Amino acid sequence: MLSDQNLASAEAAPLPAPALGEPYLLTPGPLTTSREVKEAMLRDWGSWDGDFRGMTSELRRRLLALTGDTKDEFDCVPIQGSGSFAVEAMLGSFVPRDGKVLVLANGAYGLRAAQTLVYLGRAHTVIDKGDYLPPRGDEVAAALDADPAITHVIAIHCETSSGILNPVAEIAEVVHARGRKLLVDSMSAFGAVPLDVSEIRYAAMVSSANKCIEGVPGFGFIIARKDELEAAKGRSHSISLDVHAQWAHMNKTGQWRFTPPTHVVAAFIEALRQHAAEGGVAGRGARYTKNRDVMVAGMRELGFETLLKDRWLSPIIVTFFNPAHPNFDFERFYDLMKDKGFIIYPGKLTVVDSFRVGCIGRMDEHVMRRVVEAAGQSLKEMGVDTAAPPEAALTERAKLAA
Amino acid sequence: MLSDQNLASAEAAPLPAPALGEPYLLTPGPLTTSREVKEAMLRDWGSWDGDFRGMTSELRRRLLALTGDTKDEFDCVPIQGSGSFAVEAMLGSFVPRDGKVLVLANGAYGLRAAQTLVYLGRAHTVIDKGDYLPPRGDEVAAALDADPAITHVIAIHCETSSGILNPVAEIAEVVHARGRKLLVDSMSAFGAVPLDVSEIRYAAMVSSANKCIEGVPGFGFIIARKDELEAAKGRSHSISLDVHAQWAHMNKTGQWRFTPPTHVVAAFIEALRQHAAEGGVAGRGARYTKNRDVMVAGMRELGFETLLKDRWLSPIIVTFFNPAHPNFDFERFYDLMKDKGFIIYPGKLTVVDSFRVGCIGRMDEHVMRRVVEAAGQSLKEMGVDTAAPPEAALTERAKLAA
Repeated sequence: MLSDQNLASAEAAPLPAPALGEPYLLTPGPLTTSREVKEAMLRDWGSWDGDFRGMTSELRRRLLALTGDTKDEFDCVPIQGSGSFAVEAMLGSFVPRDGKVLVLANGAYGLRAAQTLVYLGRAHTVIDKGDYLPPRGDEVAAALDADPAITHVIAIHCETSSGILNPVAEIAEVVHARGRKLLVDSMSAFGAVPLDVSEIRYAAMVSSANKCIEGVPGFGFIIARKDELEAAKGRSHSISLDVHAQWAHMNKTGQWRFTPPTHVVAAFIEALRQHAAEGGVAGRGARYTKNRDVMVAGMRELGFETLLKDRWLSPIIVTFFNPAHPNFDFERFYDLMKDKGFIIYPGKLTVVDSFRVGCIGRMDEHVMRRVVEAAGQSLKEMGVDTAAPPEAALTERAKLAA
Repeated sequence: MLSDQNLASAEAAPLPAPALGEPYLLTPGPLTTSREVKEAMLRDWGSWDGDFRGMTSELRRRLLALTGDTKDEFDCVPIQGSGSFAVEAMLGSFVPRDGKVLVLANGAYGLRAAQTLVYLGRAHTVIDKGDYLPPRGDEVAAALDADPAITHVIAIHCETSSGILNPVAEIAEVVHARGRKLLVDSMSAFGAVPLDVSEIRYAAMVSSANKCIEGVPGFGFIIARKDELEAAKGRSHSISLDVHAQWAHMNKTGQWRFTPPTHVVAAFIEALRQHAAEGGVAGRGARYTKNRDVMVAGMRELGFETLLKDRWLSPIIVTFFNPAHPNFDFERFYDLMKDKGFIIYPGKLTVVDSFRVGCIGRMDEHVMRRVVEAAGQSLKEMGVDTAAPPEAALTERAKLAA
């Protein structure tokens, strides 16, 4: 699914680089943000003041606009903390205490959702596809048919453990057809991969400030059907993570219930404006897709192999097998890449050695070409022969087949 | 207890003002921070990278050093989210599920602790002193003697609802003498009011980034005895707010369990360095005390009356009665003060009309004199005659006696 036409199209002007000496973060967040986004943090805001209430209102309005909710059926509730706080808030608020959740796991974030349900004392069952295989519609359908007690399904939109873009549209269809409710963890995808409510039916989804919108970390947000928000009253296990209470208070007063990360919010509003200026979800998605295509093509030329087949590659982050060449050492590779201005991401697979390179954040194809150059140079410095055929990588892949 | 010698002492050079057009935040947080603190947010950090792990380590070390823990009995655990998230984390992690908490309430934050315990399903009882009276040692002793089931006491160090500095030393003594455990919400006081572990015995305390350390909002932190941290394993109701899990993970990996607010952390480290440069808790406390003394003396000259007697006035925030003069209107007063560059804080008392003026943040006595001038000018603009005796304020006070 790599888009050749994008590779061939005219190049855009390069985005400005980070400040001198600051490396690019080639990771799924915290990520490289624009200078303007960070400069929006250079003042202090009173969180109860009218000016800041206006900012909170703009934030909610702009996020809702990204969902294509033309019927005014959804609302947006930001929640302080990391993205995982927002996932916990969503599970604790939308799953009734006597509900049961089917967790679709193929990596760390699916498993964390299951672990969160253990804390919450909510019944659940897990389809665990291991490190990188996608949960498919037919197996979700079979699981729902087999267990009428299941009320909710949680799916991970992009599982950054492997970088797979899971088939949420196909999953949403079978969940809806069986009268169950879908919760989507779209942490790393929302804002760059469409999640239009008219096409993918879900009860609630969650994402965070420092992913594809390119803000800085400090809060997450939930976008949910209003009827689900109403029904969530009194359900949460946590005062801080009570989505209904936050929603009701925000609608009544325009304020967050507890102190918001004001500077992070100011940065996020600037990020949302830049997101809109780039053409919204389509524009952002196109840049990330090009980032991925340029980077994957270059890395393959160097002899690296991707974990996933092209059809499952997300435009968010890509997993590569470590070359099994005896001179390749990931710690050294990490340091060599960092010296060249690029922070890459360790792998998270359980069976094979791998590493990840992110495609999101304030960077473009020009940067991705330099990433590939830096990777090639780093291999040379380690004495890993890239002219030889990549038996090394094949060796790693072979472990998966075993 | 207003310190006249401070008023008479030589004045320090004025602190730099905020950027042009930016008002001072005379509130208990978010508050006015230094330019350097905000500029520390002008770069992006990878949260798993060694550089950021070093920052997390410095943060914990510097905070611990403020407690006077010479025996290495305590540790510091930062938690993402607002201060209330950290309070919930503390209650859910240190109070066993079969424990019982005595809540000492004299304002919104005491009552919020009680409400949090309702969410957590923890048994508790409340000594509610209303809007502004301090919970005293003898009544705490009586409550503990009367109910052997009580395992923990939670006290609010400075209750910003009224601005009272509660007598935690006296409370700690009776709690310790009766073999119970003290939890302290020192949100708005820590860093400016001593909370030395050698003088005030507590199991755990909590504060946040954007109070007296003068960072920006986005996380809180818990300082707790290590044996309490060990005992907290498996107790939390929430994966995000599990203090033991965060502590164990941080000690093992140097990283936060879930994405930290990296920019807020960078700002906080700069704030901690400035705090140290100012002379630590003593230096910071002296500036705030002078802020309060200058501001209270000036406001009294204008005819305003404080809710509290001098001995209970904190150096954090001060509550004033609204003048009952027919021309006084708080909304208008707020706007007039904001026009002059000062954002004040609405009152939170249930019986009388009041407002609050904070003494914390990056400001000094020079600023506080301008605050008083602005208040005098605003009264004039509203047609509130300050030359007349303050019967108006007396009328508000009279309501308390009723």
